[in-house]
Order: sequence, then C-alpha cells, then structure tokens
Amino acid sequence: MEQPNASMLVIGDELLSGRTQDANLHHLAKELTRIGVNLSEARFIRDDSKVIVSNIIELSKKFDYLFTSGGIGPTHDDITTDCVARAFDKKVSVRPDAFEILKKYYDRKGIELNEARLRMARIPETADLIENPISAAPGYIIENVYVMAGVPKIFQSMLKNILPKLKKGSPTFSISVKLFKGEGDLALELEKIVSAFENLNFGSYPFSEKGTYGTNIVIRGKDKNLITKAEEKVRALA
Amino acid sequence: MEQPNASMLVIGDELLSGRTQDANLHHLAKELTRIGVNLSEARFIRDDSKVIVSNIIELSKKFDYLFTSGGIGPTHDDITTDCVARAFDKKVSVRPDAFEILKKYYDRKGIELNEARLRMARIPETADLIENPISAAPGYIIENVYVMAGVPKIFQSMLKNILPKLKKGSPTFSISVKLFKGEGDLALELEKIVSAFENLNFGSYPFSEKGTYGTNIVIRGKDKNLITKAEEKVRALA
Repeated sequence: MEQPNASMLVIGDELLSGRTQDANLHHLAKELTRIGVNLSEARFIRDDSKVIVSNIIELSKKFDYLFTSGGIGPTHDDITTDCVARAFDKKVSVRPDAFEILKKYYDRKGIELNEARLRMARIPETADLIENPISAAPGYIIENVYVMAGVPKIFQSMLKNILPKLKKGSPTFSISVKLFKGEGDLALELEKIVSAFENLNFGSYPFSEKGTYGTNIVIRGKDKNLITKAEEKVRALA
Repeated sequence: MEQPNASMLVIGDELLSGRTQDANLHHLAKELTRIGVNLSEARFIRDDSKVIVSNIIELSKKFDYLFTSGGIGPTHDDITTDCVARAFDKKVSVRPDAFEILKKYYDRKGIELNEARLRMARIPETADLIENPISAAPGYIIENVYVMAGVPKIFQSMLKNILPKLKKGSPTFSISVKLFKGEGDLALELEKIVSAFENLNFGSYPFSEKGTYGTNIVIRGKDKNLITKAEEKVRALA
C-alpha cells in the first residue's frame, strides 16, 4: 500500500513576527505519522492574499493532502476563506448549513449573530463542512484541502473529526535507542548499519540532559522484524 | 529605509514526523522582528537532497536572507552542507580554518577528532564561518544564506553572532491591547479603525484563560505617534 503524502500551510503574521509560537504543526505531524500519512512539507506564510492563494494552488497540486491552519475567524485579518475560494475559482457566500450551525450556537449562548460572526458562515460552494465542537464556526474540505482554525484547541478538535476520513498508509513502525555516547563516537559504526539496512530509515539526534549527553537513534520502517534486527545492532554500539 | 526580508528553512525528518517540536523558528522570528528584518516565510522540509537543494536556490533568490537550521552534524543524515554546496555550485572539503577550531576543541576535551567529527569541518569554499561557542563545530555564511545547527542552544548562540552583521530595517513598533470581548463583538468597529489607519497593521488574536475570554489587538507600524492614536481608538472598544 502506498503512503499518502501531505503538506501543511500555517497562515498568520503572528507566527512569523514571533508574537505566537505555533503548536499545530507538531500536533498534525504526530497524528499523520500515527495513521501512516507522510507529512512532507510545512510552510509558514503571512496574511497576504497573493501569497496564500499561490501556496494553496502549489501545495494542493503537489501533495495528496493540504492542511491549513489560521485565518478563518470573524475579523478583517481573516482572509483564508476568500483565498481558498480564489485558488479553486469557487464562489463564496454565507451558506445555509453553516448559518444554521452558528445560529443555534449563538442563540443558545444568548449572543447576537452579527455581521462579523456571519463571516464565519461564509464557505466556498461545494466544500464539505468540518465540525467544530469548541466554538461552532466550521472548517471545511474542498478538493484535497482541509481548512482549519488556528487556535490549537479548535484545530485539534477539527483534526480529530477528519482523521478517520483520510486514506491511510501502511503504518510506519519506529523505535528509539538511547545511547550515552556522542554522535561523533557513533557515526562511523552507525553508517555501516545504515548501509546494511537499506529499507529502514535512521535518524540520529544528540541530547544533553542533567550533565550527561548522548544520542537517540531512531529507526523507522514498515517491517517490524527488520527494525528489531537493526535495533540489536544499534544497541551493540553502547 | 527599506525593510529587508528573510526566509527560514528548517531541515529534518524529526520535525515532520512529530518526534521533535521545533523551537528555532519562534526564536528567529522574535530576533528578526526586534532588528527590523521581516521574516516573510518559513519552510519545514525533510532530509531529502533534491528538496533541500531546490529550496535553498528558490528561497535565497526570493528573499534578502535565508536562514537554515539542521543537518550539519557528524552523522549520515547530516546532508545540509553538501546540498548548500550543490545549490551554489561550490566545492566542499575539510577546510583548514574549521579543522583548527575542531582540533583545538577536541584536544582540550581529550576526544579524538575522528573521521565522523571531521565531517563537521567540511565547509563549502568561499563561505565565512559562524562561531559556535557551545560545541565548536561552526556554521557558515555563503552568499545570503546563513547555515546553522538545529540544536536550539547552538542555533541561538550562532544567531547571536550574526545578528550584528545583518542589514537592519527601521524598527517596527507594536503595542498589544487586551480587551475582554470576543472577536465577534469587536470585529465591525475594529474594521473601521483599520480603515482609518492605512499605514498600520492590525492583528486580532482571541484568547481564553481561566474561564474568561477576550481578544488581543496588536497594532504594528513605523510611526509611534500614529500607533498611540490608534491605540486610543482600540481601547475605546472595551
């Protein structure tokens, strides 16, 4: 079974100005890895229509999936939806299905569904809604693009709803071996092991904690038995 | 004075598989903002030579600066330097200046400068070294590309050394106004203020903490007096 690949587009000035630290990429990466989808690339871009549109077009063509975060709220700087519509040449307007969801939510809270909040019911034609159990305003799926909120709690709850719908790859297994030796002491012997196991992927990550230091060797692959064999070789480097 | 722009290339499978959470983008973003350099885009890519080379070429052409992190250690998966050399069509070999730095460091520690560690003295011809006060192995500057380590402590210390050398932009001032109202309640009035201050940039960021919720409005621009005037208008929305 082939491994689907994916990309992420993180939209928002606040992340590139250093105001906010993103948490969504790390979460998406973990979840996709778990279901065997390969996250190949992620891009952080500013709130600039032209840049957003061209990136949506490029990444949705290049990869099986594109996940976006940010820019679908009620304020003037939330321009993602208009950009998505432009990228796919679709009309965008307040959609009855999204309107109903927001109306119900704000009625129950006794809050007015004003013109600003109505912006969150503007969804490109033909898109399928993604449920938002936190604050109602939906995300949506158009072609292979999954448009989600930037607030981490909402991003995570939306992702939870769409993961079961994705085409899954065969799972990748991984094992991490912690060695209390520096990368420089391991590298040459490690390279021999890497050459001997062509179908596995080896990562080498130095660490230092509480005065000790060493290297985590991560072995990844599809074949559990092969990983176990490689693990024995790596443990022998200790 | 024109504002220089910049991009970042974060290299490493571990970040896209969810094994590790990046910290370097956030740090770079804050530091560049502080000196008036505009970080326009950041990309996370895998340890794949072809992808690394094409991104280095594209981003170094497109922006005034390109900063990279990751892939310059001693192991088989550290392929950034070969990719940088290929991108600029430069030869790469163990360079005497980098060799001296490593020799001195490892001699002092009583550790052998073996073949693997020597990989870290491989520097493309014509590149200028970036000092690494943590673990000696240098980064380097080639054309407008700044090649740095992925380990956050080392990345930060390298960045500290190069910041004074960068062309600075006029500083951008910013102020954040915390309002205990939802984005949906503020959006329409805020939009009027945004239209009235064309030379300023307004960001709207919802928050929720300890049962209360609200919105941070961030006003950014070059003109402090203008920001103060806009701030008054924004505070009046409370």
